[in-house]
Amino acid sequence: MRPRQHRPGRPSRGGHQFVWLYGRHPVLAALANPDRRVERVLATKEMAERHADRLGNKVQVVSRDELAAKIPADAVHQGLAVLVSPLEEPGLEDLLARCGERAMVLALDQVTDPHNVGAILRTAAAFGAAGVLTTERNSPADTGVLAKAASGALELVPLVRTVNLSRALEQLKETGFWLYGLDEAGDAPLSSIDLGGRACIVLGAEGEGLRRLTAEKCDRLVTIPTSAQLAALNVSNAAAVALYEWARRK
Amino acid sequence: MRPRQHRPGRPSRGGHQFVWLYGRHPVLAALANPDRRVERVLATKEMAERHADRLGNKVQVVSRDELAAKIPADAVHQGLAVLVSPLEEPGLEDLLARCGERAMVLALDQVTDPHNVGAILRTAAAFGAAGVLTTERNSPADTGVLAKAASGALELVPLVRTVNLSRALEQLKETGFWLYGLDEAGDAPLSSIDLGGRACIVLGAEGEGLRRLTAEKCDRLVTIPTSAQLAALNVSNAAAVALYEWARRK
Repeated sequence: MRPRQHRPGRPSRGGHQFVWLYGRHPVLAALANPDRRVERVLATKEMAERHADRLGNKVQVVSRDELAAKIPADAVHQGLAVLVSPLEEPGLEDLLARCGERAMVLALDQVTDPHNVGAILRTAAAFGAAGVLTTERNSPADTGVLAKAASGALELVPLVRTVNLSRALEQLKETGFWLYGLDEAGDAPLSSIDLGGRACIVLGAEGEGLRRLTAEKCDRLVTIPTSAQLAALNVSNAAAVALYEWARRK
Repeated sequence: MRPRQHRPGRPSRGGHQFVWLYGRHPVLAALANPDRRVERVLATKEMAERHADRLGNKVQVVSRDELAAKIPADAVHQGLAVLVSPLEEPGLEDLLARCGERAMVLALDQVTDPHNVGAILRTAAAFGAAGVLTTERNSPADTGVLAKAASGALELVPLVRTVNLSRALEQLKETGFWLYGLDEAGDAPLSSIDLGGRACIVLGAEGEGLRRLTAEKCDRLVTIPTSAQLAALNVSNAAAVALYEWARRK
């Protein structure tokens, strides 16, 4: 069986109609997601046996080298890879439909590294955030790298890409969200902020921080206090700390 | 100028006498560290001009492609790379010398991914931890990948590799440390634990968790409460949350 030719129609982000996902968690989560169309399932003999009930009848047993050839060099496939359709892109309204009176949304202002965005999705799922909002430009595609870092969370948490982040932040405000920008210039530590109700934490790209227009949209700029020795946290670690701070008050 | 032949003598971890570091923060931090012997400094024209005062007189201006050839494929060099001697390996006594009455040490039980170990060093520096303890086996070498993820923190925070982690944890106990293992089987949330005095947070490898012997050494096993949807945090995010929890109580 060979992968089908890419079908005509709107190509998904990155220009591929199908995408290879790999690694145990991303593969099993994608197979469990009814919204994924599954084209191919590759597994080493050991993994095909261990996960026989979850891999379905499309599974092909291959060598580790054959598997490795489908995915980026040095990527850790753990004996499993699938070729699947990209997820239909959720809109802001899908994200809002998941938000109750107490809800957390993360907004990413041009965070481009797929490892970071994937790790942020994973943490969002772990702490029960409603979703992640990101810019359409300057954000990574739903690649295997992102899915691997997300460790299955790409199937669980909506990643909403928006052409106009400022407008989307406005819409959040209109639906009762308070916007907190994480920024070194913030005037209050995160721990002093009331994160009840609907809250959105806005994070900027590493090095760049929040863009001016994005910062201006925020109701408040807040900091995670760090030592002078090395001031800045990695953006996925900053997101984890913010989500923890929110979740521990539940 | 060509890199020197590897000198005889005890090879550093990974078998290389010198190591290429790349990226703005890792390179500038390594050059600022008097404990590094600098063999070569490569910079693009733009970066050579921008950081002239910090690059010293060894700097060679090269093209982006020449730079890229020195480092792993797809690594982000930001126009800077240096060939430096590895750091002399700190011992547990060096780490203890940095510990006051209130101190935090992280211990990593076979965390093998250099991105994760680097990110953990970075967070340790940001929150003022005294150092990071790791196993000699099944831990990554001081490669450029680790240094890049550490974003300069490799020069600031001792990364102590120990042949026998259990014995090192015993030594920490003998010097007044309380050991808290982060483990899904923990019986108390991290937020309920008194982290005053000397505290060591012990983290296990992803997927595997703490080894039984390591868990038995801990005074207490604690959890970071997460949702059932996706239970496990990435190890570097778990470390960030633990360090934040410690730092915010100062």
